[in-house]
Formats: sequence, structure tokens, C-alpha cells
Amino acid sequence: MTEQPIFTLVRPQMGENIGAAARAMLNFGLTRMRIVDPRDGWPNPRAVAMASGAATRVLDPAGIFPSLPEAVADCAVVFATTARGRELTKPVLTPERAMAEARALTAKGQRVAVLFGPERAGLENDDIARATALISIPVNPEFASLNLGQAVLLCAYEWGRQGSDQPAEAMPMAKTDWATRIEIDRLGDHWEERLDEAGFFFPDTKAEGMKMNLRNLWSRMPLTRADVQTLHGMLRQLLRRP
Amino acid sequence: MTEQPIFTLVRPQMGENIGAAARAMLNFGLTRMRIVDPRDGWPNPRAVAMASGAATRVLDPAGIFPSLPEAVADCAVVFATTARGRELTKPVLTPERAMAEARALTAKGQRVAVLFGPERAGLENDDIARATALISIPVNPEFASLNLGQAVLLCAYEWGRQGSDQPAEAMPMAKTDWATRIEIDRLGDHWEERLDEAGFFFPDTKAEGMKMNLRNLWSRMPLTRADVQTLHGMLRQLLRRP
Repeated sequence: MTEQPIFTLVRPQMGENIGAAARAMLNFGLTRMRIVDPRDGWPNPRAVAMASGAATRVLDPAGIFPSLPEAVADCAVVFATTARGRELTKPVLTPERAMAEARALTAKGQRVAVLFGPERAGLENDDIARATALISIPVNPEFASLNLGQAVLLCAYEWGRQGSDQPAEAMPMAKTDWATRIEIDRLGDHWEERLDEAGFFFPDTKAEGMKMNLRNLWSRMPLTRADVQTLHGMLRQLLRRP
Repeated sequence: MTEQPIFTLVRPQMGENIGAAARAMLNFGLTRMRIVDPRDGWPNPRAVAMASGAATRVLDPAGIFPSLPEAVADCAVVFATTARGRELTKPVLTPERAMAEARALTAKGQRVAVLFGPERAGLENDDIARATALISIPVNPEFASLNLGQAVLLCAYEWGRQGSDQPAEAMPMAKTDWATRIEIDRLGDHWEERLDEAGFFFPDTKAEGMKMNLRNLWSRMPLTRADVQTLHGMLRQLLRRP
């Protein structure tokens, strides 16, 4: 199993938010959660209900700890998520940078924790004092309203984004029966002939340029075999005299 | 003011989710929202209450449209967010890549829409038929549970993340004078009408499906304004009786 950072909820208040955090994590393949001193005790039925399918994968194996020092005792590196603008002398990383560090660290067998504070007030200075570095999500300074679940979601997304081996853009090539070049050529011929007969390439001095443009148009289009059949059929039907 | 993509909520159901989307957007500086046929009408007090400080910046100036074609009529490029795994022959982009394209396009004055479907079922095939490309958030295939607000949040985050440091690199899509959606719609209408008159959509039981396929074909093609003119002209010329 790939090593993962341990998302650690510090003194969470609402069970619903614990469940939402579990779901957000599992969307991006993260399953390691720890919970420090949950306000409403543990287990929490509201957390389980909200977690839905993530209950068994994330909540059931979650570690419950009475205090933050105990929760992170075995971790080599601790990131603490904070709202923007704390005056502290620790490195402040974006989620992007922090998750890159976390990937590098966990790949070397180092245990990494990412702390998320309570809903209302966030982490206290005493919690932050235990962190190696801070994570600050670069939000609009005039409007910052991320809640606990959203902060967890964005960090989990960054973890997943950086680990994803899929290309940034994927034409679903495997699923699609693309036309071959020769089929596109024949399509171009068919249209060119009929358009020529219809007097489309006019005046003669511009005909070559117009044909070239049309050729370019067909070859530039991502056409499937079915598209090519459709385009042949359209032309035939349009020219069928009633 | 920096040009921005227009986040377009298609037939949203709960006012709370519209408000949450507005908040998620404003966290990353996005203020341009359009709403298509909101289930509970407009204005919606629940949306305003949930939006909190984002109500005046995002909801008040939002455009309300009765249908999707009207909402995206002036847009050159339309991205549609979808769950994983649709069998379609359109490009599928990550949020990362899509927002990079959106930055490049908007920087050149092209109008870009990003569609988000209704809470329960997501976008319908008929909506997707109007999109240039799809956005798929690379979630855990065994556990995908993102809701509307979370999908909006992740796309907004990507927009903000990429704007925070790196300059928008000129991408190939941004260099060209692309046709707007209304131009593509009119092209589709023109061909559909003439093909209908020519008896192309036969038999009747298959007509709707054939029209949908053709709609998808046009919207999927990277058509420039010049291409659209050419395709109108071709059709007119073909039908001119000698």
C-alpha cells in the first residue's frame, strides 16, 4: 500500500464535519485519519451517517487520541493548516507545495501528519507550536470562508492531483473508433466533387485556396468513423432530388 | 478587471447549493455566475443567506437564463463538468488543464463558460451536446462522492492556484478566432432544417437520436468563425438548383 499522510482533525465539533472530511479524503484515495479529542465523543453516529461509504474505509480504522502531542508522537513531519496571515516564524506552504513534500517524505517511509483545526476557531497557537510547517490555502484576502470539510477537500485534491498518473488531457481514444486519414481524405474528395459540381468554388482564381481551406477543415476535425458516415450520408441526402 | 470564466449552474435545485457555489467561487476571486432555470425561481432567499458575503459580489450580478443555449450563446468555449466515464468523443480535461485553457482564452478576450449540472443527476446528454470539452475531476474510481459545491470549489481553486504565480501561457486554443456557441447553434439549426426537409432524419423513431448526434458533432468540432461561414455557404450552394 502506498504510504499516505495522516489527516488529523484536532478537536472537531460536529460529527457531520468529521464524516464530510472522511468522504472528501476518500474521493482522492486517502484513508488515514486521526481524531484528537472530538467534542461529542467517539464513536459518533452523525459522523458515520455523513461519511456514508467512507465510514468503513476511513472512520472505522481512525485513531482517536486525547491530545495532539499523542496523536502526532510517531510523525516525523507535521503540517498545520491555518488561515492566512498568522505572524509566525515557520515556513508557510501552499497545499500544492505541502503535498509535494508529503509525497517525497512518505515515499521515504517518513510519517507525515496534516492538522486541521476545530470548525469555529481553527488551530490554537499551542497546536501550531507542534507543527514543522504551515499550510495556507491562497484564498481571496477580501473573502476567505473555507470550512473544515473544504480545507480537507482541497488538501486531499492536491495529494491526488500530484499522484495521478493520468495525463492532464485525455481524448477517450481507446473508447472511440476514430476515422483513419484515408477515410478523411475520401470524405474530403466526396464533398469537394459535389461542391465543385454545385459551383461552390467560385471564382476560378480563388478555387484552389478554397479547396485547401476545406481540406484543412476536415483534417483538423476529430472525426469518428460514425461521423464520417454521417457526413457522407448528409451530402447524399441533400443532393437527392425529390 | 481580469477576465474570468463564467461558472454556470444548470437547473440547480437547492438555494443553499447556489449560495455555497457563490462562496466557493469568491474564495478564489471568481465573481461571474450564470444560472439556468433554477428550480425554486429567482431571487432565492436561501441562496442569499448561504452566500453570506458573496451575495452582493456574486449572486446579485448573476445572469438568470431560461435555457442553457441562451446562457452560453455569447461564449466561445464551453466546458462541462461530468462524472467520470461518459462514453463521448469530446476531449476530457482535468480541472488543472481546463483552467489553464480558460486563463489563456480569457486573457485574449474569449468568453468561457464552465457548466455544473443539477445536484442529483448532473448534466444531461442534451446539455453536454453543447460543450466544447469536458472536465472530469480525477477522483477515486471506487469512491466518487463530490457534490455541486465541491465541484465548483475545486474548479475555482484551480483557477486561483494557477493565477497566483505562473503567467498564462499561450495555448493553441487561444490563438484563434473561435466561433461562439450561438454561431454554432445557428449552424446546427441551419443544417438540421435543410436535412429535415431533405428527409435525412429517417425513420421517425430514430430522428431525435440522429439530431442529437449531429448536434454533438458540431459542438465537438473546433470551429473558427471562418469555418462556420464556410459550412453555411456550402449548404446554401448545394441546395441551389441549377
